[in-house]
Amino acid sequence: MKTGEAPLAAVAANEVTIDVAYTGICGTDLHIFHGDMDARVTLPAVIGHEMSGRLAEIGSAVQNWAPGDAVTVMPLRWCGTCPACSAGHSHICHHLDFVGIDSPGSLRRRWTVPADLLVRLPQDLPLDRAALVEPTAVAVHDVRRAQVAPGEKVLVVGGGPVGLLIASVAASAGADVLLAELNPQRRAFAEKLGLHTVDAARDVPAYVQEWTEGAGADVAFEVSGAAGGVTTAVDALAVRGRLVLVAIHGQPRPVNLHRFFWRELTLIGARLYDRADFETAVQLVAEEKVPAAQLISTVVPLSDAASGFAALENGGSGQMKVLVDCGAA
Amino acid sequence: MKTGEAPLAAVAANEVTIDVAYTGICGTDLHIFHGDMDARVTLPAVIGHEMSGRLAEIGSAVQNWAPGDAVTVMPLRWCGTCPACSAGHSHICHHLDFVGIDSPGSLRRRWTVPADLLVRLPQDLPLDRAALVEPTAVAVHDVRRAQVAPGEKVLVVGGGPVGLLIASVAASAGADVLLAELNPQRRAFAEKLGLHTVDAARDVPAYVQEWTEGAGADVAFEVSGAAGGVTTAVDALAVRGRLVLVAIHGQPRPVNLHRFFWRELTLIGARLYDRADFETAVQLVAEEKVPAAQLISTVVPLSDAASGFAALENGGSGQMKVLVDCGAA
Repeated sequence: MKTGEAPLAAVAANEVTIDVAYTGICGTDLHIFHGDMDARVTLPAVIGHEMSGRLAEIGSAVQNWAPGDAVTVMPLRWCGTCPACSAGHSHICHHLDFVGIDSPGSLRRRWTVPADLLVRLPQDLPLDRAALVEPTAVAVHDVRRAQVAPGEKVLVVGGGPVGLLIASVAASAGADVLLAELNPQRRAFAEKLGLHTVDAARDVPAYVQEWTEGAGADVAFEVSGAAGGVTTAVDALAVRGRLVLVAIHGQPRPVNLHRFFWRELTLIGARLYDRADFETAVQLVAEEKVPAAQLISTVVPLSDAASGFAALENGGSGQMKVLVDCGAA
Repeated sequence: MKTGEAPLAAVAANEVTIDVAYTGICGTDLHIFHGDMDARVTLPAVIGHEMSGRLAEIGSAVQNWAPGDAVTVMPLRWCGTCPACSAGHSHICHHLDFVGIDSPGSLRRRWTVPADLLVRLPQDLPLDRAALVEPTAVAVHDVRRAQVAPGEKVLVVGGGPVGLLIASVAASAGADVLLAELNPQRRAFAEKLGLHTVDAARDVPAYVQEWTEGAGADVAFEVSGAAGGVTTAVDALAVRGRLVLVAIHGQPRPVNLHRFFWRELTLIGARLYDRADFETAVQLVAEEKVPAAQLISTVVPLSDAASGFAALENGGSGQMKVLVDCGAA
């Protein structure tokens, strides 16, 4: 990894330049850092897609924005013409440009982006917390895909940052949430946030049976990425239960399809977010309905961004969200 | 297998006795015949759950029914109090009594059942065709679970009786249907019914890509019960595509969950039917929107019902639906 001056593009008519305040490091960034995604990332790359900042320069054709406005960026660009875009699912565009992976990201002092990627932040929202809007938008999208209703029993399998955000968003939607997590340190952290947890090494489906008086969970979110997480979620679901698949499973997983048939279960894939999810996420972060501030475990300076990656990697379960201070806060 | 006089229960106040016209043999019956389901079936058993007939005796408390009325039976009895029933999903009752498997069925001359299981048939509907209302109700339920919309591209994997019925019901809902089937005899039969078919041994996902101009199928029905059928269906689906799981998979199957995530696919388990599905099925059979008459390949007398099982088993792909003539037609 290199830190230094990235070339700054001139601001075109439809673009803005942002003074970046914070950039969060997510698991995907760690993969890029290790070279696992070299096929997709063109080097040298500027990564980063969880961010906050203030507008510095405004392109001549950009309306409704002014220097100093607090912003975040929804890091998606789509083609507008493929079958997915034509069907209205542009966030799953066949040729999606995920900004920060497929094109340059926000891990820099100043960042120039098309103005239509901007999402407005309340001027008084602390910009460190605001860097968690993007992962919160993921959680909002996941909960929306599940159509979680008030009073429903929801199981979240996996207690990392995204699992905790999903649990919080589901709780704010009125659900009764249970978080299954193997790591005792992560369970303790979740309990401190007010979440109901269970040790994932226990017989979680049996625990859920008891918790739901024999019915099973209405909704389960698979956020662990482990084969066992899928089995746990499937076995814990009630008749007509919905399983939302959030984690990335790099290989085919054995799935008990007989139980899908027998209980009329539904498995729902969920990826990224759309603008409505992002705007809901801004609101939830601003109203402290999600524990954005509490999830920030470490902040490192841009000049030493590499130490942030190291912290995330070596800090283990003690680390939740690591932010890089890009200077504009 | 034994044929002879089954004990006839006296007609209680809420019951009716039916003179049975026809009973269809389905795959589950074959399993019972072979003893595969001895754990669930109490011997000696009268099986059969696809039937038609006319009312003979009417219990004293039964209203709105008269001797001679043409009927079929929705063979489900539920407890009404378990979590599934309480949630309104009584066809997936935790203690479901599937009549003809868990309790005595219709493979007999006269059959006494609770009157609330009756479904009215048009008086002029040929009773042989009417015996196909039950499998048609399965197909109606499957298509409804998928929420198939006019103009959608639908792939059906597996061209047995249920696959053909699903293809027909989806087509009658306005979908553009493709049927994938390995067996050339079954493909020829489907083509004769006017269905568009593809050899399942080909690269079906590639064929579907071309057929849908790069989009993929909106809906796929897995009716083959084979691991390869699941893979084919998943790989053929468009962004936000829905896979309805109809077949029974006796063991966990490897599923490409990454594709579920990446394309935001949905997997939907579908089991049995409810009364609305049954009533729609009666209508579709009566209006010849499904090829009920064409699907009947063999009719055997009740005195020689065993030959019907043998025909179904040995006739292979040439046999579609075998009916037992129970005498009242």
